[in-house]
Amino acid sequence: MREFEIIARFLMPVGERRRRPGVILGMGDDCALIRVPEGQELAVSIDTMVEGNHFPVAYPPDRVAWRALAAATSDLAAMGAEPLAFTLALTLPHGDPAWLRPFADGLSRAAGAFDIALIGGDTTRGPLTLSVQVHGTLPAGSALRRSGARPGDSICVTGTLGDAGEALHWLESANPVPAARQVLDRYHYPIPRIAAGLWLRGRATAAIDLSDGLLADLGHILDASRVGAVLELTQVPLSEALRELRGEQGVEGALVAGDDYELCFTWPGDLKVPEDIAGVTVTRIGWIEKTPGLRLYRNGALEAFKPGGYDHFGADPEGAE
Amino acid sequence: MREFEIIARFLMPVGERRRRPGVILGMGDDCALIRVPEGQELAVSIDTMVEGNHFPVAYPPDRVAWRALAAATSDLAAMGAEPLAFTLALTLPHGDPAWLRPFADGLSRAAGAFDIALIGGDTTRGPLTLSVQVHGTLPAGSALRRSGARPGDSICVTGTLGDAGEALHWLESANPVPAARQVLDRYHYPIPRIAAGLWLRGRATAAIDLSDGLLADLGHILDASRVGAVLELTQVPLSEALRELRGEQGVEGALVAGDDYELCFTWPGDLKVPEDIAGVTVTRIGWIEKTPGLRLYRNGALEAFKPGGYDHFGADPEGAE
Repeated sequence: MREFEIIARFLMPVGERRRRPGVILGMGDDCALIRVPEGQELAVSIDTMVEGNHFPVAYPPDRVAWRALAAATSDLAAMGAEPLAFTLALTLPHGDPAWLRPFADGLSRAAGAFDIALIGGDTTRGPLTLSVQVHGTLPAGSALRRSGARPGDSICVTGTLGDAGEALHWLESANPVPAARQVLDRYHYPIPRIAAGLWLRGRATAAIDLSDGLLADLGHILDASRVGAVLELTQVPLSEALRELRGEQGVEGALVAGDDYELCFTWPGDLKVPEDIAGVTVTRIGWIEKTPGLRLYRNGALEAFKPGGYDHFGADPEGAE
Repeated sequence: MREFEIIARFLMPVGERRRRPGVILGMGDDCALIRVPEGQELAVSIDTMVEGNHFPVAYPPDRVAWRALAAATSDLAAMGAEPLAFTLALTLPHGDPAWLRPFADGLSRAAGAFDIALIGGDTTRGPLTLSVQVHGTLPAGSALRRSGARPGDSICVTGTLGDAGEALHWLESANPVPAARQVLDRYHYPIPRIAAGLWLRGRATAAIDLSDGLLADLGHILDASRVGAVLELTQVPLSEALRELRGEQGVEGALVAGDDYELCFTWPGDLKVPEDIAGVTVTRIGWIEKTPGLRLYRNGALEAFKPGGYDHFGADPEGAE
């Protein structure tokens, strides 16, 4: 199947199924055209997934599509931006309709769920790799940045953490127990916290989405804000399913495993932390301090834990440094 | 070398070296933020290059960077948009500073030459693949689309065609003749026709950049505009170097070989075609007709030539269809 045929048969219909005002011109020309309303800014982010690295080899194509679009859209949620449109750079080993059809269906379902329109892309031949760039809008000056955390702020997270990391242990399982099926579902079909991000805009002092693990991602807020923090490990919210599978040990995976796509945000210390936002539970898991570094406590006692998180080059034995 | 270190050491400096008003927030947060002036639209396009497909294996990293950014920026030129900013999704087999340093240098030089700022990206591990998304601005409603060609319009191209295609025959050559070195230079360091695209805005009736070969790309204008065309092959502009290497046969490569990144545009039939635009020669190579299809003439006689062009999946022996 030829490149133009792949685009015309499988990808253009995804673009046509969902139109958004603000998209002046979608797929089919040298560029797509976006109009940004007066007083608004455009938030953009690009995210890549490589077969065998970000998802298993021979992973079902509808899940490939959903996860790639969810991961990218999660960056819009973390800034408090409203999803508008995305482009897709799709590198494929073969132009195989048996793969492309469910891929396009998964992409269309995800685009519908996140209310974001496919407006362009590039289809090339090579090892299976997807780069998704998302575009969203927000009132000028209102973006949730990583740099706004101040000493005394509460550190909060939405939802529960660690399920997607736990799912990695069950991907190969022929007959997973019910709790494992629940964590697998969170891995296969992550939900970017778009409504929570919109609600937090103008309220939270800093925010990030949890894609690389709590310690790594909270570390980015601390670095950007030039502050430190205390985390109370017993407060890290775990799902019933993860508790059933790992008990209290589940928190350790939650600290370093990525792919949860919950939001971590800081909240003014003098304000009560909301119990839920847009239908998602919120948990206070620590607070910001002036002293740099991240200190982990368990039941009030300092705990040693090597901070880390998923790093694509971290475990590289051939790395030059 | 870790992912964050690669970004901090090699890519962030590229972003910091070139700042553009309109970029509210560059690298280092969940999203970059762009402001689009009132009355303007944002043109966006994403372009992927895969090692061994779009550039040779072990190709010098500064050329990888230049070609990837040039190819993407050329899509802005084709719409008549002014380059503003780009994101880079870089997939690398190793985090090797000996590769990353010249890559970042080449990227920085290209960003300077095209006046476009690096504002974000993603760095992942896998087979060498780059996706570059470019963003440019233009007055609302002024974009050069593919769909505006009308019967009677002249078909024009900037510069000369076929050099980059000819270069493919010389990439492995240990000691290329001088003319071959000239065509190789066009392959290694293509120049997007940004100034020409800006000048054509509001003047040309349709435009496209020549990335896949004249026949394929002009075919997109004909399809989008629902018209046909006559091309006079003896008018297709060839460089001195290509004439020296191939004589008049050079035109055949020019028809189907990509990577020239010149502009092909249609021009109102009742207006004189400009001789040059922004310092680049312009040549009239044919005209638009109402009858669909593309007819090739050589010295006034109809010539049979199977239209084609570079298609990443076209030569796929394993393709399902």
